Amino acid sequence: MGDVAVIGTGQSVFSRKCGVSVRELCFEAFQEAMEGLDITKDNIDASIIGSAPEYDKQRTPSGLISEYLELTPKPTFYVESVCSSSSTGLRVAWSLIKAGLHKVVAVIGFQKMSELTSREAAERMGRGGDIIWDSPLGITMPAGYAMYARAHMAKYGTTEEQLAKVRVKSAHYGISNPKAYYRKELSVEDVLGSQVITSPLKLFDCCANADGSSCIIVASEDIATRVAKIPIWIAGVGAATDTMTMAGRKSLTNLSCAVEAAKQAYGMAGLGPEDIDVAEVHDCFTISEIMAYEDLGFAEFGEGARLIDEEQTYIGGKIPVNVDGGLLSKGHPIGATGGSQIRTIVRQLRGEASEAQVKDARIGLVHNIGGIGQYGNVTILRR
Amino acid sequence: MGDVAVIGTGQSVFSRKCGVSVRELCFEAFQEAMEGLDITKDNIDASIIGSAPEYDKQRTPSGLISEYLELTPKPTFYVESVCSSSSTGLRVAWSLIKAGLHKVVAVIGFQKMSELTSREAAERMGRGGDIIWDSPLGITMPAGYAMYARAHMAKYGTTEEQLAKVRVKSAHYGISNPKAYYRKELSVEDVLGSQVITSPLKLFDCCANADGSSCIIVASEDIATRVAKIPIWIAGVGAATDTMTMAGRKSLTNLSCAVEAAKQAYGMAGLGPEDIDVAEVHDCFTISEIMAYEDLGFAEFGEGARLIDEEQTYIGGKIPVNVDGGLLSKGHPIGATGGSQIRTIVRQLRGEASEAQVKDARIGLVHNIGGIGQYGNVTILRR
Repeated sequence: MGDVAVIGTGQSVFSRKCGVSVRELCFEAFQEAMEGLDITKDNIDASIIGSAPEYDKQRTPSGLISEYLELTPKPTFYVESVCSSSSTGLRVAWSLIKAGLHKVVAVIGFQKMSELTSREAAERMGRGGDIIWDSPLGITMPAGYAMYARAHMAKYGTTEEQLAKVRVKSAHYGISNPKAYYRKELSVEDVLGSQVITSPLKLFDCCANADGSSCIIVASEDIATRVAKIPIWIAGVGAATDTMTMAGRKSLTNLSCAVEAAKQAYGMAGLGPEDIDVAEVHDCFTISEIMAYEDLGFAEFGEGARLIDEEQTYIGGKIPVNVDGGLLSKGHPIGATGGSQIRTIVRQLRGEASEAQVKDARIGLVHNIGGIGQYGNVTILRR
Repeated sequence: MGDVAVIGTGQSVFSRKCGVSVRELCFEAFQEAMEGLDITKDNIDASIIGSAPEYDKQRTPSGLISEYLELTPKPTFYVESVCSSSSTGLRVAWSLIKAGLHKVVAVIGFQKMSELTSREAAERMGRGGDIIWDSPLGITMPAGYAMYARAHMAKYGTTEEQLAKVRVKSAHYGISNPKAYYRKELSVEDVLGSQVITSPLKLFDCCANADGSSCIIVASEDIATRVAKIPIWIAGVGAATDTMTMAGRKSLTNLSCAVEAAKQAYGMAGLGPEDIDVAEVHDCFTISEIMAYEDLGFAEFGEGARLIDEEQTYIGGKIPVNVDGGLLSKGHPIGATGGSQIRTIVRQLRGEASEAQVKDARIGLVHNIGGIGQYGNVTILRR
């Protein structure tokens, strides 16, 4: 069996796009992903659409998007693992190609969130937790992550200032990302002084809802070496879960699904955390990034906050993380996020990230979490 | 690469299950699927959950179901192609195993529809069509299939009586199926005299909403030969699409997505329609079964109705179809349907369908359609 590569990536601008339909939104990412490739849409054997349901009225969007992109009669279907839906899509695309069923698969992630009020969106996100045991207790996304933050602070002495520093880095890199929602420098004081959402998390500790799409074109080795200038190989695809209910978790200071997914991805790639040149982690909240440092093995458990104190996750540091601004600056259009992370790493490994290039990056990692830590996906890419 | 087999199947009773939660509903099918297998739930490497969203309040049900079945921390995700979601799940499971990523995968389909009124359910199903171009014109499921019926009648002279005969066969076999919603003999007169829903379709030409679940356990060749009494091999997995909008269809007398999916599945299996001993087709409406006869090559285009006139799709005929009662008698809990069809064929090929066994059946086919003909899935199984 040959290897499987990412040959094209695209992403819409992440923002509020009130006059744009879901299908139009997806076209923006698809068009960029196909640019410069020596294949046409007729060479795409299948599409996989990832998003979280119920943010817009259209049901079964895969058929709709596939038709709009003129991919009919090729097969299409929808995959979902909430915020990690497009990473799940990538893993499935890898399998479809590896199994010999297809040669080229498009993975499209999207979310159209601006049609809902913040309150409606929060309610739907709450229903992404267990609706019998958790969401009636108010465990929406910010509340769940606030519990992680409190637990991390209690166990390891992590401070609100350290959390704020994650956002300061995010803001710093977000400025250079033309597709990011927020592009404004922020200080530790700005973050600490922003409105409390769920203590200890404040407004600037939280990523924002956004409309957006992403697209990853994945291909078999024979196609990839022929049509892509620089194919980026999929070296590891790890995936794991933890309980839906927060009460079922063994630990609130790390995400076991991420630890397990990372273990699988490292094992499959024959690599370890020390081999990673650049990483994208799922910083839906500032605490998430600190937990990710530990869950991925970039720091020992309890030592994550030190990495940000020492600026080791800036370019030039030990392991540059989220140098595209991450979810905190880009915004988090749920289904589109994983694909956007993949796109950033692919651009880094190709040396095309002129706005914030990590020098000689050859191996990259994407950490994409679904829900309040229910779904962990880790993907390792290499040049 | 070794072959991939179905080693276990299960299905809940399809009915109104008002006091049962989604996770409990899925347990019923999972338990049956695991019965008699020489593996435990700890041997299941991943689960894939198929359903159509928005019929119940819980979002991201895959994590919830996976936790309830004690499959955590194994990966899980959700797939959707509306009514063919669990066939899509089976195709993805086949790929995950064929790619070497997993050895055993559980595909669980479900739908809990009884929490909605019929009108709410019809509205949600309408939004499974294009919500800009089709559903505002009233093209819900029955209306779309009524258009097919009218077109078939106009082009080929198919009659309402012939449609009714499909339901008479369904009712005849439904009686013997202990998991079917409707178990009552019906005459042509009963069907023709039932309430008009969307002319020419009457109440008994339509399948019913139901609550239900299904589960298929899929395994690699080495596991399957070791743990299953009679492994049933997946010989072909075809999938294709047609436009979401009815206006985009080239024909209203057949489903091109089914024709294409069948072509793929036959090609992969190295078989043709003449090799199929028993088939399950997606009879969401009586006209659907007649179109399926033609789309699958059991009859020439325009000749489908003759098969039912001549009782060639009864046991003892040329090609027995839906001898478990089909969707028309079983009910159609959207995400569960494909898995239920697979279960029927597996039981037939194992010679375990005492209630309605097709003698010496060795090769079976499942035809599972999503939406108003947007998604076509054809799976070929062999003993």
